[in-house]
Amino acid sequence: MKAIAVQPGAGVPDVVERPVPEPAPGEALVRILRVGVDGTDYEVIEGSHGGPPSGDDRLVLGHEAVGVVDDPNETGLEAGQHVVPTVRRPPPGTETNEYFERGEPDMAPEGAYVERGIVGAHGFMAEYITSPAEYLVPIPADLAEWGFLVEPLSITEKAVEHARATRSAFDWQPDSALVLGTGSLGLLTAAMFTATDDFERVYCLGRKDRPHPVIDVIERLGATYIDSRETPVAEIPAAYEPMDLVYEATGYAKHAFESIDALAPNGVAALLGVPGDWAFEVDGGHLHRELVLSNKAVVGSVNSNRAHFEAAIDTLEDLPDWLLEAIVTGIYGLEAVDRAFPKAAARVPAAGDGSAAIPDDDTTIKTAVEFTAI
Amino acid sequence: MKAIAVQPGAGVPDVVERPVPEPAPGEALVRILRVGVDGTDYEVIEGSHGGPPSGDDRLVLGHEAVGVVDDPNETGLEAGQHVVPTVRRPPPGTETNEYFERGEPDMAPEGAYVERGIVGAHGFMAEYITSPAEYLVPIPADLAEWGFLVEPLSITEKAVEHARATRSAFDWQPDSALVLGTGSLGLLTAAMFTATDDFERVYCLGRKDRPHPVIDVIERLGATYIDSRETPVAEIPAAYEPMDLVYEATGYAKHAFESIDALAPNGVAALLGVPGDWAFEVDGGHLHRELVLSNKAVVGSVNSNRAHFEAAIDTLEDLPDWLLEAIVTGIYGLEAVDRAFPKAAARVPAAGDGSAAIPDDDTTIKTAVEFTAI
Repeated sequence: MKAIAVQPGAGVPDVVERPVPEPAPGEALVRILRVGVDGTDYEVIEGSHGGPPSGDDRLVLGHEAVGVVDDPNETGLEAGQHVVPTVRRPPPGTETNEYFERGEPDMAPEGAYVERGIVGAHGFMAEYITSPAEYLVPIPADLAEWGFLVEPLSITEKAVEHARATRSAFDWQPDSALVLGTGSLGLLTAAMFTATDDFERVYCLGRKDRPHPVIDVIERLGATYIDSRETPVAEIPAAYEPMDLVYEATGYAKHAFESIDALAPNGVAALLGVPGDWAFEVDGGHLHRELVLSNKAVVGSVNSNRAHFEAAIDTLEDLPDWLLEAIVTGIYGLEAVDRAFPKAAARVPAAGDGSAAIPDDDTTIKTAVEFTAI
Repeated sequence: MKAIAVQPGAGVPDVVERPVPEPAPGEALVRILRVGVDGTDYEVIEGSHGGPPSGDDRLVLGHEAVGVVDDPNETGLEAGQHVVPTVRRPPPGTETNEYFERGEPDMAPEGAYVERGIVGAHGFMAEYITSPAEYLVPIPADLAEWGFLVEPLSITEKAVEHARATRSAFDWQPDSALVLGTGSLGLLTAAMFTATDDFERVYCLGRKDRPHPVIDVIERLGATYIDSRETPVAEIPAAYEPMDLVYEATGYAKHAFESIDALAPNGVAALLGVPGDWAFEVDGGHLHRELVLSNKAVVGSVNSNRAHFEAAIDTLEDLPDWLLEAIVTGIYGLEAVDRAFPKAAARVPAAGDGSAAIPDDDTTIKTAVEFTAI
């Protein structure tokens, strides 16, 4: 079968030939339909995050998948059932641990998990995968075409659940939410916030020039676009309003600190980005005092568990087709795999200032690889 | 009657003469027994925090009080009932607002409250005070001698409640807690943590030389003393263990950031200090990434509400007498009020390096002023 693998640091993924996997007892064989591409994939491709299983020099990519059960292998799943696989698995040579037993692999510390397609385990960009049935979340057939969005939506489901938890010791009545980032996760999150009654007003911060399809999406959602070049994060309360929730999906470390000033009293900042080391000056006394005197919270969130996938499937059902069609800017078969990874294909050596010199493919939002036509 | 008032910035509090207040309808008249002194009082005395009600140039100090109902004034309280007053009240000219109506004045933003003895309202260091009955929390008579510790204990009750809330979206099983600070709040908190089964192991960070009564208290509690001069906060995981909870009671802004590295995966840092502005460099990329990849949280907490006072009274009942006697190093009548404020009395002009030149009165932990002998 065909799969998409990468030698971390090589800069571009390749189509490789692999044997169709055999399901072990308790595992089902799943034929993959589509697999989404996200920023983590690019980090794996460039070698800055994750890596192959030990003993392997290549990693099969892909952690945002939707497939269909090919051989249930007596797992209780049904042949033809559409499923979305979760990402974390117990480390090699172990069957489980306390985090997996509790259904909370997303809370496992480093060393207590591998992540399929990211670190220590092959991913889902293959014609077939096997997985223990407990990690396969059923999805209605009519959502299968968008099923590769369930994993990124689940990331937000978890982050928002944890952010709300931080505010659960009092009667929190949020009205305003600010999403930092206009990538696919930022847009999906802005869509989730506007699709529910959770927030009266939603803002989305980016650095795009008008006219731009991303700004069109934000405004069609009923959200407000904020240009970070005109309004830095810390100045948003004065220019717009203080935010009850800030959702950071930029990986830009200064945003983590500036968010504290963007928050309303009793607000919470949910951090999702994974920046590299970067030393800079902050007014630490001011930030510390602000957190305390205004009862603010900051919460980091990574990965998601089966319950978040299930919530994400419910959310996906509520998102309008126009939005999904606007966000998913390209679905490519194996013959055009380069187009599914435009940032990798277009990569040129990093500039000396530390910024990766990726030309801004400014109309691409979210791509996916299609292994089986739907 | 006698009261203790300060002209902010004057540097020392004075005993002043005031009329005995008349309770308005809904208010009781309370005869004050004892009032504790804490770091906030010193900030008010030196003029760096809070201030008198508008139109007044002096503020009656004191927010950690215990008293006895003198005239219930048809409020439903009973004469002779021991009570502890809460601190926040609606701003002048208002009777209530949504935060007070919800019983959560501790979550009110600036402008939606005054604080008795701190900002905008006279405090409890007087022979008599009046208060609406709803802000008077009954305390058993046999705890009255220590009742001035209920307010500081309530601060920790709230902070820990909010810290636990941040971890309520998953099955958090904390074992280790680190208290930053060996002042009275730090020691009371370490005592609370060791008095309950909440944490298997409790650590307390300070900068005292052995032998020292504060270190003796920490060790008698069964906690571990960590000298910050030998083990900086960020190195505590390597030297001791990663901490599930960090409780910051130093007001030293770098601790807020170093705490993130002191935390175990899934841990939470509760911040309580109120530092002034202070710019310094942090590895913001590292801290942001650490928050995200290890699902960590930081939560600021200020003030406390009636429910926290009630919890604090339960906690006070469980604290051993030896501890209370060790922490409360002096209770002084009005004739010796200078001794209740040793740091104010001993203050000399601040050194040029910005550190207040307060001689370290190294054996004083907690003092109180006694208005009525118990």
